[in-house]
Amino acid sequence: MARIVMKFGGTSVADLARIRAVALRVKREADAGNEVAVVVSAMAGATDQLVGWSRDAGGAQPDQREYDNVVSTGEQVTSGLTALALQQLGLKARSWLGWQVPIETDGMHGHARIRAIPQDGLRQRLAAGEIGVVAGFQGVGPDGRITTLGRGGSDTSAVALAAALEAERCDIFTDVEGVFTSDPRVVARARKLDKITYEEMLEFASQGAKVLQTRSVEVAMNHRVRVRVLSSFNDLPGTMVVDEDEIVEKRVVSGIAYSRDDAKVTLLKVADRPGVAAAIFGPLADNAINVDMIVQNISEDGRFTDLTFTVGRGDLDRTIRVLEANRAALGYGAIKPDKDVVKVSVIGVGMRSHAGVAQLMFKTLAENGINIQVISTSEIKVSVLIAEKYAELALRALHTAYGLDAA
Amino acid sequence: MARIVMKFGGTSVADLARIRAVALRVKREADAGNEVAVVVSAMAGATDQLVGWSRDAGGAQPDQREYDNVVSTGEQVTSGLTALALQQLGLKARSWLGWQVPIETDGMHGHARIRAIPQDGLRQRLAAGEIGVVAGFQGVGPDGRITTLGRGGSDTSAVALAAALEAERCDIFTDVEGVFTSDPRVVARARKLDKITYEEMLEFASQGAKVLQTRSVEVAMNHRVRVRVLSSFNDLPGTMVVDEDEIVEKRVVSGIAYSRDDAKVTLLKVADRPGVAAAIFGPLADNAINVDMIVQNISEDGRFTDLTFTVGRGDLDRTIRVLEANRAALGYGAIKPDKDVVKVSVIGVGMRSHAGVAQLMFKTLAENGINIQVISTSEIKVSVLIAEKYAELALRALHTAYGLDAA
Repeated sequence: MARIVMKFGGTSVADLARIRAVALRVKREADAGNEVAVVVSAMAGATDQLVGWSRDAGGAQPDQREYDNVVSTGEQVTSGLTALALQQLGLKARSWLGWQVPIETDGMHGHARIRAIPQDGLRQRLAAGEIGVVAGFQGVGPDGRITTLGRGGSDTSAVALAAALEAERCDIFTDVEGVFTSDPRVVARARKLDKITYEEMLEFASQGAKVLQTRSVEVAMNHRVRVRVLSSFNDLPGTMVVDEDEIVEKRVVSGIAYSRDDAKVTLLKVADRPGVAAAIFGPLADNAINVDMIVQNISEDGRFTDLTFTVGRGDLDRTIRVLEANRAALGYGAIKPDKDVVKVSVIGVGMRSHAGVAQLMFKTLAENGINIQVISTSEIKVSVLIAEKYAELALRALHTAYGLDAA
Repeated sequence: MARIVMKFGGTSVADLARIRAVALRVKREADAGNEVAVVVSAMAGATDQLVGWSRDAGGAQPDQREYDNVVSTGEQVTSGLTALALQQLGLKARSWLGWQVPIETDGMHGHARIRAIPQDGLRQRLAAGEIGVVAGFQGVGPDGRITTLGRGGSDTSAVALAAALEAERCDIFTDVEGVFTSDPRVVARARKLDKITYEEMLEFASQGAKVLQTRSVEVAMNHRVRVRVLSSFNDLPGTMVVDEDEIVEKRVVSGIAYSRDDAKVTLLKVADRPGVAAAIFGPLADNAINVDMIVQNISEDGRFTDLTFTVGRGDLDRTIRVLEANRAALGYGAIKPDKDVVKVSVIGVGMRSHAGVAQLMFKTLAENGINIQVISTSEIKVSVLIAEKYAELALRALHTAYGLDAA
């Protein structure tokens, strides 16, 4: 008998038939004597429709408080329908909205962060054998209004709730069978990982794998929540996200991630003097534009250099506007934007103790005639920016080179 | 400069174009210097979809608390979208959900009644020039969960809010131009009424006219809220619901209403003794079945009589089950149910001081060969039950007979 959190994504609650299937799966855990809190996303497509309406009514940048009010209804609907489906199976169940638990967040509407989850009422009801169905993605801000946690935020709802409830496990049900060594739609020989470390999962999520929201992995890592990623469409065991010492068979590289969400900006003929980088990136930070990879060329004449960096593809137009508005102060020659790029990352905690991981990546790409535009590294990953047309070729070649291909 | 409440029904907020039209109309009132609270229904069709999903997930009698949770999202969405549309016009606006105002109700989920509206926050924001967009149909119960007020409940939200805010006027925008002397879809010569008394409006609503929820008229009458019913599709003045002494030109009859929502039940060979009516209607009341018209035939032999009454058409099957379960105790000969009936009502406060109103009704129906099955009267209305096939004929004939036809 344990306390567990089960989270179901949009495709897992896409219609009434899927919601009934979810209810049956929850019943199995309840029948086994577990206390079960369920976290649900909106029905697949519902959030897109609500976002579309909000933009239609409120313009490209709608008031985020009203956006949250509208968009959070998607999860509210599934929380109620899932509770009803559980009741139809003879179980005690009730829905909990963000403001009812409550899931207290900061006031950053549209991308709020959870501050605290004083879940006394919920915990009592769970202990009394009632299944709690919590609407994901939503909380309540200091202003008493509904907040949302950003796209994919239901993962974070689930992990944070598991931490607050001191749950034994947080199962994230989705439409894939777990975390793979690479995207199986691109790399046919990708393998499902049985276990992955928090650190690797964090890199996978932030380098483009959509399986978990990045923030949810941070929360899991900080609170040591045992997260399992698995499919709601079958009974396979999925992937367990665990501490590094729980992984017996050490690997150097766990997988190859990629992201098409980046755009490259090159500033030509930038003055090569101290403080120029701060002068350029300051206005971008002021406009909440995140800069990821940065490379500054070596100046040939000691006077001018080129500066290249990446931003989110959705931020590109805004980035150019900010740079142009500050052109006089920055004093660059020209802006060269490029959306046709993809970021490919080799990820693995084993890198810490193994040399030559990056070298194998560069060599493999060179052998396939792929030019590397930008490089960035961390302790457990190497990322390169390449032309988008090489994405599939690079992924497959790297997957083979690092010995990840399924037998 | 006044404080007003403007309520928009489902067809008035059916899509984004309609919501923008609503925002323009609200802007006119705000620009004129009024403090404006807006109450919105769900987009036309949204509630039906949500109700359908609730029944699909929770069966024919879903848990009313979850039903409320799911169904209330329709108004939540329009509250946000309407606030956004108002902001796009440069107005200050925010949405208010039932639990935020709060609109405090009793705990009767699915058909809750408003107990109190402590609207201090809302009132302050209105006074500061911000338009408040309140989600109709919903409140919050003593259990801290969302309640709904029954179909058409947004009318009651609006009138109760107008009473709490001591508003000068409550405008109910709908898809008809006001209250008519009869249903214009049936009676081509029906006329729009400029004014109607609370008492007449209450009879119109409870006798089948769908223009306002009955409960909302009760609240308006109790708090003397000046209600105006008008179309959101044009700029005509609509119908004002007022005190009797505000109507200068007295009419004997204001209109003819009809309802297809009733069913007739006849019990044959009921023992003609004291207490038999109580014995029959007690079990129905215990099962929350409302009995409307009742007629007991005169007993011919002093031993047996027939008893006829009407119930809501949706309650007919349940009524028969209750009667059959109590057959031994009640001792009737047979049950004769009949769904093919319509109730036609002649309504007017002038009846109080005029004789012969009922007689004209009976005579007109007789001249048209229409048999009256049951009669019931109140101070300001006469209702008869007739075969459903005569509905249109009866309405038109009575409309002419009482001098209501448009010139």
